[in-house]
Amino acid sequence: MRLDLERVRLARNQIDPVFLDTPQYECEPLGQVLGCRVVLKVETLNPVRSFKGRGTETVLTRLLDGGGARSVVCASAGNLGQALAYGGRARGVGVTVVASARANPLKVERMRALGADVVLVDGEIEEALDTAARIAARTGARLVEDSRDVGTCEGAATIGLELAELPGALDAVLVSLGAGALASGVGFALKSLRPGVPVVCVQPEQAPAMTLALRAGAPVEVGVPRTIADGVAGRYVIPEVLADLSAVVDDAVLVAEDSIVAAMRLLHEHAGLVVEPAGALGVAAVLEDRARFEGTTVGTVLCGSNVAPADVDRWVHAPRPTAGWSH
Amino acid sequence: MRLDLERVRLARNQIDPVFLDTPQYECEPLGQVLGCRVVLKVETLNPVRSFKGRGTETVLTRLLDGGGARSVVCASAGNLGQALAYGGRARGVGVTVVASARANPLKVERMRALGADVVLVDGEIEEALDTAARIAARTGARLVEDSRDVGTCEGAATIGLELAELPGALDAVLVSLGAGALASGVGFALKSLRPGVPVVCVQPEQAPAMTLALRAGAPVEVGVPRTIADGVAGRYVIPEVLADLSAVVDDAVLVAEDSIVAAMRLLHEHAGLVVEPAGALGVAAVLEDRARFEGTTVGTVLCGSNVAPADVDRWVHAPRPTAGWSH
Repeated sequence: MRLDLERVRLARNQIDPVFLDTPQYECEPLGQVLGCRVVLKVETLNPVRSFKGRGTETVLTRLLDGGGARSVVCASAGNLGQALAYGGRARGVGVTVVASARANPLKVERMRALGADVVLVDGEIEEALDTAARIAARTGARLVEDSRDVGTCEGAATIGLELAELPGALDAVLVSLGAGALASGVGFALKSLRPGVPVVCVQPEQAPAMTLALRAGAPVEVGVPRTIADGVAGRYVIPEVLADLSAVVDDAVLVAEDSIVAAMRLLHEHAGLVVEPAGALGVAAVLEDRARFEGTTVGTVLCGSNVAPADVDRWVHAPRPTAGWSH
Repeated sequence: MRLDLERVRLARNQIDPVFLDTPQYECEPLGQVLGCRVVLKVETLNPVRSFKGRGTETVLTRLLDGGGARSVVCASAGNLGQALAYGGRARGVGVTVVASARANPLKVERMRALGADVVLVDGEIEEALDTAARIAARTGARLVEDSRDVGTCEGAATIGLELAELPGALDAVLVSLGAGALASGVGFALKSLRPGVPVVCVQPEQAPAMTLALRAGAPVEVGVPRTIADGVAGRYVIPEVLADLSAVVDDAVLVAEDSIVAAMRLLHEHAGLVVEPAGALGVAAVLEDRARFEGTTVGTVLCGSNVAPADVDRWVHAPRPTAGWSH
């Protein structure tokens, strides 16, 4: 286990407070639909609309405290890049983000607006990572790698510190699973502070790399991800992250694309929130196995909200049968 | 001035923490559209989807600490009633809410779901208030009256305590104006702690009672409100609230219905939030007078999010010209 509770606690002082102490509350109307009590942990109301700021702030503060490089580079599907750009701009650190040419254009636009130098490459996130590593080697910039860099996991773990302070029982916490920083961070904090709370990872069926690796105990060959949940669409498993995850996670489940869209719609209707597909995975998991969660109390982290408007129209908005109301 | 800063500070300990320390952050994409820096104060991510819990929690805690009645009654367009129902349920206090038969059905449904006894009456909020007063007289229940009850103002003022701690300059704070609890509370806290920050109230043109009263220095006869912003649609002015407001407010502006809808759409697109019409008034004010706010930093309180799904479809969703994105 690479994560350390004392460092996680210190991370709270390394992170811009705008990312901390996010809303966490029971959303009763959503629970009525799902047949269980649902506690939402909302990570979308901040300058980058995702939880990633917790990790990048941790990494950047540690880098500068250690007298490290004044420039950083990362590969990103969009959210890590936005968060790194935000933190770099505030600290005078140059930020280069390498993304797939097929990345979500809203996220690419936001990275640029935050001052990042964005390099687009053919291929998926893994090809972007290769390019980022080459840029780091050539320029001396520090490579920030999601999940492999323990600071990204320990920053995300501060979400778990906050969840651990929730009053009342929690029968499960559902966490979106991509490369593993969020899930291993939240899982580690919960196992440290509330060890009786099961931690369940949720990944799209169409991007199952880490889930299959958890089940097999080792990385498994999978195809190119084909999910709308771009925030968790990785193909390769980092062995150190797999080891961390295995130690703190109780279960990992896969969900279908239709369930992700249905979950996005429910969160929009009952919480008034746009969430991106990767942020709706926990609710999708309940939708797919209502019997398992019936009558229990589950928490879930709404980890991002970066959806292009046209995709919101397509996924969230659909004709409704009821008439409107007006005073 | 009825509000007291020491009591406002104490109110922070009288309010369920689920309503406190809400997100406040600069939403840069929205600012780019509006031509100024916009700091959002988000009061919609809690169990009642509005700021009203701050006031009702304050009132209920004081009532019980003082050995008062074990039942309460209020008139409400929906948000006060939900908040009172939530707080009453947690404390074993019986709650009756009187609402107009034309009230937002989503809000009525939520009040009932939270355990309130809901009485619907013909007419507007003022007729509901008459009925609530009669119920109080007959049953001994404590009448909780929005804005007239200083606890509702001092609870709302805790938003101002939090805004006052924002780093950086604020050139104006824009606050939705209805009966006045929110505006007088936020205005009072800001005038106490950051007296240089102008406080600007925003009310719909179609429900201008308090704004016209502020300008005239006394209540003015107005017609029946005809606004989609049901949360601020009052007709009559409470003289004590007018006096408080006059002491802490720098300006009050009116906005058109079209601007309210446009503001709701912008907040949905750029912050990923459903806000109800009353919560979008500050952004609507910037839309109506861009020159006034150009290049400045404005804060605004997104005070509620209770919109029926069919109304979200009607007001927020509309065809967009751009194509969707998918991985």
